[in-house]
Amino acid sequence: RIDADRLWDSLMEMAKIGPGVAGGNNRQTLTDADAEGRALFQSWCEAAGCTMGVDRIGNMFARREGTEDLPAVYVGSHLDTQPTGGKYDGVLGVLGGLELIRTLNDLNIRTRHPVVVTNWTNEEGTRFAPAMLASGVFAGMHAQDWAEDRTDADGKRFGDELDRIGWRGEEEVGARRDDIHAFFELHIEQGPILEAKGKDIGVVTHGQGLWWLQVTLTGKDAHTGSTPMNMRVNAGLGMARIMELAHTIAMENQPDAVGAVGQANVYPNSRNVIPGKAVFTIDFRSPDQEKLDGMKARLEAEAPKIAEELGLGIEIESVGHFDPVTFDESCVAAVRKAAERLGYSYQDIISGAGHDACWINRVAPTSMIMCPCVDGLSHNEAEEITKDWARAGADVLLHAVLEKAEV
Amino acid sequence: RIDADRLWDSLMEMAKIGPGVAGGNNRQTLTDADAEGRALFQSWCEAAGCTMGVDRIGNMFARREGTEDLPAVYVGSHLDTQPTGGKYDGVLGVLGGLELIRTLNDLNIRTRHPVVVTNWTNEEGTRFAPAMLASGVFAGMHAQDWAEDRTDADGKRFGDELDRIGWRGEEEVGARRDDIHAFFELHIEQGPILEAKGKDIGVVTHGQGLWWLQVTLTGKDAHTGSTPMNMRVNAGLGMARIMELAHTIAMENQPDAVGAVGQANVYPNSRNVIPGKAVFTIDFRSPDQEKLDGMKARLEAEAPKIAEELGLGIEIESVGHFDPVTFDESCVAAVRKAAERLGYSYQDIISGAGHDACWINRVAPTSMIMCPCVDGLSHNEAEEITKDWARAGADVLLHAVLEKAEV
Ligand SMILES: NC(=O)NCCC(=O)O
Ligand SMILES: NC(=O)NCCC(=O)O
Repeated sequence: RIDADRLWDSLMEMAKIGPGVAGGNNRQTLTDADAEGRALFQSWCEAAGCTMGVDRIGNMFARREGTEDLPAVYVGSHLDTQPTGGKYDGVLGVLGGLELIRTLNDLNIRTRHPVVVTNWTNEEGTRFAPAMLASGVFAGMHAQDWAEDRTDADGKRFGDELDRIGWRGEEEVGARRDDIHAFFELHIEQGPILEAKGKDIGVVTHGQGLWWLQVTLTGKDAHTGSTPMNMRVNAGLGMARIMELAHTIAMENQPDAVGAVGQANVYPNSRNVIPGKAVFTIDFRSPDQEKLDGMKARLEAEAPKIAEELGLGIEIESVGHFDPVTFDESCVAAVRKAAERLGYSYQDIISGAGHDACWINRVAPTSMIMCPCVDGLSHNEAEEITKDWARAGADVLLHAVLEKAEV
Repeated sequence: RIDADRLWDSLMEMAKIGPGVAGGNNRQTLTDADAEGRALFQSWCEAAGCTMGVDRIGNMFARREGTEDLPAVYVGSHLDTQPTGGKYDGVLGVLGGLELIRTLNDLNIRTRHPVVVTNWTNEEGTRFAPAMLASGVFAGMHAQDWAEDRTDADGKRFGDELDRIGWRGEEEVGARRDDIHAFFELHIEQGPILEAKGKDIGVVTHGQGLWWLQVTLTGKDAHTGSTPMNMRVNAGLGMARIMELAHTIAMENQPDAVGAVGQANVYPNSRNVIPGKAVFTIDFRSPDQEKLDGMKARLEAEAPKIAEELGLGIEIESVGHFDPVTFDESCVAAVRKAAERLGYSYQDIISGAGHDACWINRVAPTSMIMCPCVDGLSHNEAEEITKDWARAGADVLLHAVLEKAEV
């Protein structure tokens, strides 16, 4: 069993880096705070006897050798956060991995396969879309050049910011793909199901697919007072209508579908100017491929009609996508068996969020372990879990790894 | 007659200060560019033999003495612009006033009443709401302390920024109220009517009233993927619905009413976070007091229902207001007579925008002169007028002033 107090202390220590404004964190990817968090993680890994590898997109790999020259069992998640994020989303999976290494050390357990703890760069996708960017490059889903050209709201390039914070490593991205015997990602649920059902552990069998669409509407800046209603080409009004459409589409695909607008900007954003431009993003998700693609298709069919009625130009761009995921049966079974053996209550669950595991699942046997979070709240500084939930998740992670890494 | 080439050159010279990104201007109030524009105007006024007075809120008064100790005839407008504003909105009224002084000098005309050209601080109201802030303080409509406490999006205080750019003068604000024999403001129409009707001059008889409402919706930041639809408290969706409501209210009050949302912001504005907060502004206008107040009342009655349905907190704050304006009959007659005498085509018109003249009208006989602008476009960098339109406007201004200032 892992040491829950030690895990908790590390979580709280990491949470001091990039503090938020309401008790959570703002440690967005490739910021100075991200660099500081990475350095702390590295120092902990080295203290635990691991060697650290970093690839050319900043993914970190802390390795504990096995007794044989075999592919490694990988665990991990991400240390970056939302701008107003919580202390556990991603961090639990990375520090849970570190805790399992520390526990193996304490118990003097040598595994046949090496064990590697990873921190994947830019999982959140807020500063640079899409989410899970660097695990996507690792899995061969995105070209590295393309990823490095992603820009943030200030026009800064991902690649430049990676260099700026000094975390571009030497390793070719994805070179380790064949080294992955199995990958397990421990993560908070970010939804309400486990807590409502009173379960300690979610055995993640599937993940929702996702479409992120960015809509740009082009109208005409004009005076709010002196422009007659019939002469307006109001991009803000078009945005409002397409926001409502996105919601309607999600509601009409219930259950097993969600949709919302997360980013919404009008230009020039002045009280007495009719917005001549609006840029906003739509996030559609479903575990059902047909529903997922259907929601996107309907938005793409109907939004242009709304734009046309208002005389607006419209451009719809996909800025993020992954298909629904089915995790590896034998990895899923290892998680279920670990929960069973340890006496934790558990149930199968579908991940509502995207995770690095969704990409790694493309190139290696992968599954996930979830633990509950209070009120299902995540992507909120008030995100919270109990130490017992963290303990159960990390214990199950330990035992799933032991099964695959073999003692 | 004025010298249209000289007026035009001055307009183009001023437009070099605070250039925009698309041929227009970004010379927002109390920025360094504003300070530079003020200094240029001052140097021109002094070269034209005027003395410059500045009051404690930054309003500028360039005075050409009369032959008698009488109240002065005031003209002018504002030099500040929208963030993506045009070269003429406001500037034409100030530099048209300067041109009339230069013309009087050229022709060696001495008026009985002095003539004063003003530049009113923060007419646009974009950086610091409300619009026409400093003319409002001058007219006794706002307390000076209150005005100085207005903050911009970065939290900077109006009063501090006024000090920072060095344009706080010595004069008590409003001390000159009794010195105003008449006030004339030349301005571009900012709407399509004069151009469509082929008129050189709008004789402004009335001005629309305005309500600016700022709505704040409070929901709950949550994950866009893993939060079930029925657990969402989506402030962005509430914003979309209230934007549509504002539009509906304006449409149902046609004709003689307009309404739009100019500023719209969601928080944390992240692709995968359901917005927990939205802040946006609504601009309702009408020349009809009952319609104007009715639109506001209906928004205040119905928006809370939309919020309640979505579980959102709502706060609606008034951030700008003025009642419909009826300009002074004798000043209106002076403008009409000037247009007639000069042979320009003209018609009566209602101002769709708010202007400093709307406040000065409360304390002194006031009216406005409008000239057409291309496609009725304003609050847009592409705002355009012809040199002939500028000439006609400034000629009429000259003659209206001559009538009131008496030769
Ligand atoms: N787990 C998580 O919040 N990932 C960010 C990508 C997503 O929006 O699902
Ligand atoms: N003239 C002008 O654009 N004034 C700004 C105040 C308003 O929005 O009407």
